[in-house]
Amino acid sequence: MKSFGSDNHSGIHPRILQAIAEANTGHVHAYGDDPYTAEAVADIRRVLANELAEVFFVFNGTGANCLSIIAANNSFNSVICSDTAHINVDECGAPERLSGGKLIAVPNVNGKLTVQNARSELHDFGFEHHSQPGLISITQSTELGTVYTLQEIKALSDLAHSHGMYLHVDGARFANGVVSLGVSAKDMVQGVDILSFGGTKNGMMMGEAVVILNPLLARNFKYKRKQSMQLCSKMRFLSAQFSAYLKDDLWLTLAAHSNAMARLLASMIGDYVEIVRPVEANGVFAIIPIEAREKLLKEHFFYVWNETTSEVRLMCSFDTTKEDIERFAEDIIKAVQ
Amino acid sequence: MKSFGSDNHSGIHPRILQAIAEANTGHVHAYGDDPYTAEAVADIRRVLANELAEVFFVFNGTGANCLSIIAANNSFNSVICSDTAHINVDECGAPERLSGGKLIAVPNVNGKLTVQNARSELHDFGFEHHSQPGLISITQSTELGTVYTLQEIKALSDLAHSHGMYLHVDGARFANGVVSLGVSAKDMVQGVDILSFGGTKNGMMMGEAVVILNPLLARNFKYKRKQSMQLCSKMRFLSAQFSAYLKDDLWLTLAAHSNAMARLLASMIGDYVEIVRPVEANGVFAIIPIEAREKLLKEHFFYVWNETTSEVRLMCSFDTTKEDIERFAEDIIKAVQ
Amino acid sequence: MKSFGSDNHSGIHPRILQAIAEANTGHVHAYGDDPYTAEAVADIRRVLANELAEVFFVFNGTGANCLSIIAANNSFNSVICSDTAHINVDECGAPERLSGGKLIAVPNVNGKLTVQNARSELHDFGFEHHSQPGLISITQSTELGTVYTLQEIKALSDLAHSHGMYLHVDGARFANGVVSLGVSAKDMVQGVDILSFGGTKNGMMMGEAVVILNPLLARNFKYKRKQSMQLCSKMRFLSAQFSAYLKDDLWLTLAAHSNAMARLLASMIGDYVEIVRPVEANGVFAIIPIEAREKLLKEHFFYVWNETTSEVRLMCSFDTTKEDIERFAEDIIKAVQ
Amino acid sequence: MKSFGSDNHSGIHPRILQAIAEANTGHVHAYGDDPYTAEAVADIRRVLANELAEVFFVFNGTGANCLSIIAANNSFNSVICSDTAHINVDECGAPERLSGGKLIAVPNVNGKLTVQNARSELHDFGFEHHSQPGLISITQSTELGTVYTLQEIKALSDLAHSHGMYLHVDGARFANGVVSLGVSAKDMVQGVDILSFGGTKNGMMMGEAVVILNPLLARNFKYKRKQSMQLCSKMRFLSAQFSAYLKDDLWLTLAAHSNAMARLLASMIGDYVEIVRPVEANGVFAIIPIEAREKLLKEHFFYVWNETTSEVRLMCSFDTTKEDIERFAEDIIKAVQ
Repeated sequence: MKSFGSDNHSGIHPRILQAIAEANTGHVHAYGDDPYTAEAVADIRRVLANELAEVFFVFNGTGANCLSIIAANNSFNSVICSDTAHINVDECGAPERLSGGKLIAVPNVNGKLTVQNARSELHDFGFEHHSQPGLISITQSTELGTVYTLQEIKALSDLAHSHGMYLHVDGARFANGVVSLGVSAKDMVQGVDILSFGGTKNGMMMGEAVVILNPLLARNFKYKRKQSMQLCSKMRFLSAQFSAYLKDDLWLTLAAHSNAMARLLASMIGDYVEIVRPVEANGVFAIIPIEAREKLLKEHFFYVWNETTSEVRLMCSFDTTKEDIERFAEDIIKAVQ
Repeated sequence: MKSFGSDNHSGIHPRILQAIAEANTGHVHAYGDDPYTAEAVADIRRVLANELAEVFFVFNGTGANCLSIIAANNSFNSVICSDTAHINVDECGAPERLSGGKLIAVPNVNGKLTVQNARSELHDFGFEHHSQPGLISITQSTELGTVYTLQEIKALSDLAHSHGMYLHVDGARFANGVVSLGVSAKDMVQGVDILSFGGTKNGMMMGEAVVILNPLLARNFKYKRKQSMQLCSKMRFLSAQFSAYLKDDLWLTLAAHSNAMARLLASMIGDYVEIVRPVEANGVFAIIPIEAREKLLKEHFFYVWNETTSEVRLMCSFDTTKEDIERFAEDIIKAVQ
Repeated sequence: MKSFGSDNHSGIHPRILQAIAEANTGHVHAYGDDPYTAEAVADIRRVLANELAEVFFVFNGTGANCLSIIAANNSFNSVICSDTAHINVDECGAPERLSGGKLIAVPNVNGKLTVQNARSELHDFGFEHHSQPGLISITQSTELGTVYTLQEIKALSDLAHSHGMYLHVDGARFANGVVSLGVSAKDMVQGVDILSFGGTKNGMMMGEAVVILNPLLARNFKYKRKQSMQLCSKMRFLSAQFSAYLKDDLWLTLAAHSNAMARLLASMIGDYVEIVRPVEANGVFAIIPIEAREKLLKEHFFYVWNETTSEVRLMCSFDTTKEDIERFAEDIIKAVQ
Repeated sequence: MKSFGSDNHSGIHPRILQAIAEANTGHVHAYGDDPYTAEAVADIRRVLANELAEVFFVFNGTGANCLSIIAANNSFNSVICSDTAHINVDECGAPERLSGGKLIAVPNVNGKLTVQNARSELHDFGFEHHSQPGLISITQSTELGTVYTLQEIKALSDLAHSHGMYLHVDGARFANGVVSLGVSAKDMVQGVDILSFGGTKNGMMMGEAVVILNPLLARNFKYKRKQSMQLCSKMRFLSAQFSAYLKDDLWLTLAAHSNAMARLLASMIGDYVEIVRPVEANGVFAIIPIEAREKLLKEHFFYVWNETTSEVRLMCSFDTTKEDIERFAEDIIKAVQ
């Protein structure tokens, strides 16, 4: 039975597993000095329509995010993010540990960082007692299943750049954002300085890419990756996944599917439970009263997002089927009636 | 053509790749809360005959080693290691970065840390100006293709413990050491407090295990792994590899093979070039004069270990064949004649 | 002319300067192994009526606070504090840098951390993705010139201890708090695990003491102080200041005076400007409209606390005189009329 | 009785204490925004004949050295230093802790780093597995009482700069070096990028200056000092010491005296004990057999430098008198006869 707990409860898409198998021929150099990696880097550049992007594969999202931060920030800098940001609530303090700097979490609006809230923390530049704001970090799509519009990204990018700061996008679910807006990946990274380009939550076995769009941030990055324990020896097996992920728009197809499943779920249960966030990506956030919730949890798996309000998070994966949704929706409706 | 550059130039053993494919069925919980991980932990405990060992899977050797250090040491502690230790020369300072502590590299004897050399750094305990020696770290088999005897390990363990310190084994090539000595894995970890149990260099795609034998060092380790960016979300795909790796002694079979290939190579070229280290694991260190070396490098790949002496390192992998060795040996003999 | 900018704009009290001069006789051992330090430690223990307190002198408040944090916390722990806490807003991220951990700043009530707000962050214990709450830190007296009652401290201490956490008091202005409540120093540290005992802001030249009341936190502290660059070589000149500071209750006399000056100022201007915080220590927070403020700043010095509301902070020092207050108050009244 | 244990066993020179007292008038701004600091900065620039030098006062030598390192190095860089360097053996790992980088200690020759030994560690630039050599650090005068010649400094500076590295001088005893060579301070810093300019060991109460001669290293330094807990609030009391220290060449007079005392001691005992290092600054290193040593330690204080050889370190201070030397020398002669 499918889990609605997280999109990393799913496995590997067959074409990606196949790519791993196909890369498993003979010997190649380690640490990325291999043709698979060269190809995957080219693939990402092509998808982003940016020949100058520097691409570094890493193991996981924590690594991609933390390395993005130390690409942009010194230890005396701060990161401005939403209070719901994964880097703020789900990394056990890894960003602070690796960067030595401060995270400033501001109140979110449906999971998003707003210009107004971010701006309120942009002060005391040049004052040595104050952690200098260095980076604005947003998650696209967000931890609450919403998606920043291009205008919103531009506004945050302008805000960052006008203060000598950088813009980072945690793209653990970047694909879901791209297909949700119906824009190109190229459009999505306008104004972005550095991107955690995720694959794990959308059908890869593991692997993320740090994509450095602002060349200033690429300086010395290879040493930072190595020293941060994120340099993979048999790199080809991360790279080959990425090439398969991007080939024939597989990544977009998978994300479009999981987004569609979330919309389907929301549409089926929306008359029976309160959907509390816009359903713009692959997650549905709904109020399911505790009694119904407990009943459901005997048959299904999902996480309670907010115990106080009994808001639950229902995540769809690339392999969640229409039948999975129908059965789950029926059970939800039965439980709450 | 096979590379003699490194044992991580090889790919994935078919049975391990098969295990990844077999683990790719349906949804399971992330971050290690899954049956594959439970099984792999049990497998490692069984192999080490230690039911109480705490096992944590991580992505790579750098991660396993650095996490082992912070399991044992505070930032004001030092690690005593051989000057050839991987943690000293090949991690771009990751141990210092993660632990905040000092590495004290002492002269090696054929890649080994000796009791005498280690002891010379065990002083000034209790003196606040001095980094307090906290951990002795050895590599088994060593970076120079040699293997510590059980007696040597016991002596270093005794030395560490008699000073209130711990013993860490960097087991990136643990299997090669075990089969070289012809002992059990259980015997090999007598007196060891924490082990980096490697898989990548011996047929796995990626993945290492931190095996904590001294329960004192397991305290809070899960937070350390997460904060150090080494917690894998789709953990089952690391765990399943380990189970396949250990099943039916595959790990020992593979290591025995690569060791045998190294011995074969040494025996074939030993009359023509100087073998400068005991060949006890899967590497051969030989003096190949620069002219011959350059000729060889047109057809084969290997690394120069010491430019001054023209010592080269020739590594055998789990999939290096007798034919690979024969051809390489012939070419070496031709090149030096 | 006296500054109302900060209580560290003042100099050294004559008796403390005298003590430095008197300690300047001949040679003594460095790094605290001297009779002056032994005496100062004994003095602090006496004042706190705690013979078992461990006392470590450091250079400054940033050092005392950051070292207190690493005495209690691992890098995977968080510190819960008020959003106005000095450690949160005025240390340029030093706590994050030194500890590698997270600060969680919650909304203050007149500069204080409330049990309710602190409690809201005490969750997800044992969950490896979450920075584990390890320390509650409060400032006594607070950055907003208010003072926690003994009941409030007890409640926060109970909250911390019932969750396996510790309570830290940033006592940069500890003396002002003690005299404000009219309690003993001993009473003030009931339930406190570790105290930054300040001297600099109340008549010392420089120097703070980390006072470890919970012996669990003293373990290895001397190494942490040294490695954190806070071990003074000619320690006697810090220690001698502390002995003079505590002798004949000088510290309390000075704090009582600066508190009284703040109350006098508030009483004189309270009919003309809005006093926006309870005046419980040596600071007055008032709304002074921008035009009046600018006029005043030509003759006096003070800081704007909140540009939006034009709230200003007016700090009194141990050497602020009645005449200073009268002149300043007159000028304020003139400016706002 | 005077200690020969360390030059920080002495106290404060009267003129420096007087300067503290004279700076103790009224209120000034904190954190260095005061006229005393401006003057002291100007004094240091004048003494070094470098109007562009950036000067930052800090509390102690550990702070000055560690901040110098992080001014020059990223965490993935290494520092090349002598194995006897204070930063290597006497800071409890503070440089590793603060910088996150590696120290590479090479064998000393009479306490000095040689070009040859330093050069042997300058390799693998651009190789991501290797801590990138970033800084050469030397101590002037050295921990073994010797002094680098200007030629030696130039050679190390050239070596550093030709590899894109920087040169740091730990000048805890900078004055002793300057007077020993009979050169100007200006000459002494030719080719130096950053200097820890010491005062504490030569008559100051406490305080060191980080003098940044290469403007590239000054970037963001103020934030680094603050975040590293080395920003003094009542800065004027550090600054005023420096002005007095430099006025009328007091610093050179004091160092010339302590150097002369060391030479006197060496000349008096040289026929009776073996002097094992050139006596070029204010320390004498001699072999005093253990029995004689123990006898002497009943009446005098000094440290054993090397237990194996019974080499002792005898340090002279700014206030060591001819009579102190004569008495000590007599006792030494008696003890060894």
